[in-house]
Amino acid sequence: MSHRDPMRHAIIQMSRFPGIGQRTAQRLVYWLLRQPKVVAEEIAAGIAELHGGMTQCSVCCNVSGTDPCRICATTDRDTGIVCVVERPQDVAAIEASSAHHGRYHVLNGAISPLDGIGPDQLAIQELLARVQAAEFTEIVVATDPDVEGDATALYLAALIKPLGIRVTRLAHGISVGTEIEYADKSSVARALENRREL
Amino acid sequence: MSHRDPMRHAIIQMSRFPGIGQRTAQRLVYWLLRQPKVVAEEIAAGIAELHGGMTQCSVCCNVSGTDPCRICATTDRDTGIVCVVERPQDVAAIEASSAHHGRYHVLNGAISPLDGIGPDQLAIQELLARVQAAEFTEIVVATDPDVEGDATALYLAALIKPLGIRVTRLAHGISVGTEIEYADKSSVARALENRREL
Repeated sequence: MSHRDPMRHAIIQMSRFPGIGQRTAQRLVYWLLRQPKVVAEEIAAGIAELHGGMTQCSVCCNVSGTDPCRICATTDRDTGIVCVVERPQDVAAIEASSAHHGRYHVLNGAISPLDGIGPDQLAIQELLARVQAAEFTEIVVATDPDVEGDATALYLAALIKPLGIRVTRLAHGISVGTEIEYADKSSVARALENRREL
Repeated sequence: MSHRDPMRHAIIQMSRFPGIGQRTAQRLVYWLLRQPKVVAEEIAAGIAELHGGMTQCSVCCNVSGTDPCRICATTDRDTGIVCVVERPQDVAAIEASSAHHGRYHVLNGAISPLDGIGPDQLAIQELLARVQAAEFTEIVVATDPDVEGDATALYLAALIKPLGIRVTRLAHGISVGTEIEYADKSSVARALENRREL
């Protein structure tokens, strides 16, 4: 492919990224031009080879370089607890907390009738198949604390609780390190709702 | 090249861009994974083909897809006035203002002894060669309003004024649309210094 103006073309391509506008793309492209050619080539190769090397784990539906993924393949994790998340990056966030030692299941979205996303568009059948095939003791629903995440959590609870499996949800409240004075009102409301006996 | 974890590799590559940290890179790579493969390939091609198609204009030292560049090659611009800038992106900014109808010269930096950048590291010899070869009437120095830009402007004035050519500098002051109350103190100081007779 040859372009009359490779710089303009590179700027157009870079500004396809979400959150990268025309001006940022221009800044990044000018930066690239000041680097040795090999820098642009290495970055381009990293992007181009991304999809080729990635697949979806046939167990948990997370993106992964291997199938099954590293977390599904390992034997030293709790096989009884499954944490259900909306997106692959949520797995990374929960792993970073080191507080969950079980498996994961990635729904790849949340129920959102306004966007035309119902249960069939999510990896809920795959979750049900796992629930029926394995001996799970608890499903931790870690969907977002918004309307879509709440609806998805309720839907999953209605589906899985009748099978005699515990369904829990992540606690929402004031985040650690936030002073009550500065917490947003939804978090304060949730914190009051979910208050615990001392 | 094959990588054990293409996602990790893509994140490392993306975070080489200035202003793109680990978390932003992760967000962009997850976004890329949700797009069709061709999106990543198109963006990668745009980046990879950038250097191949770009060269430096042998007249004005700007980056360009052609040599001489579009601005140096055209015949319908004022050939008597040259605007001297630090960076290629400054040319784009001044072109966007539609207020300069002459040529450009890109120094590719500014004099900065602390960073080891003296006149020899900049495209000043190339500028002098142009000044001596052509019939310029005015050199507009559009370097940044900082210590380095000021030093470079003074250096160029000392060099070019003795040749009998007018050397001017962009006006600095309160930017259009800024209320004096909210203008930064350096801009107010410059505005007072450069005040004009009414």
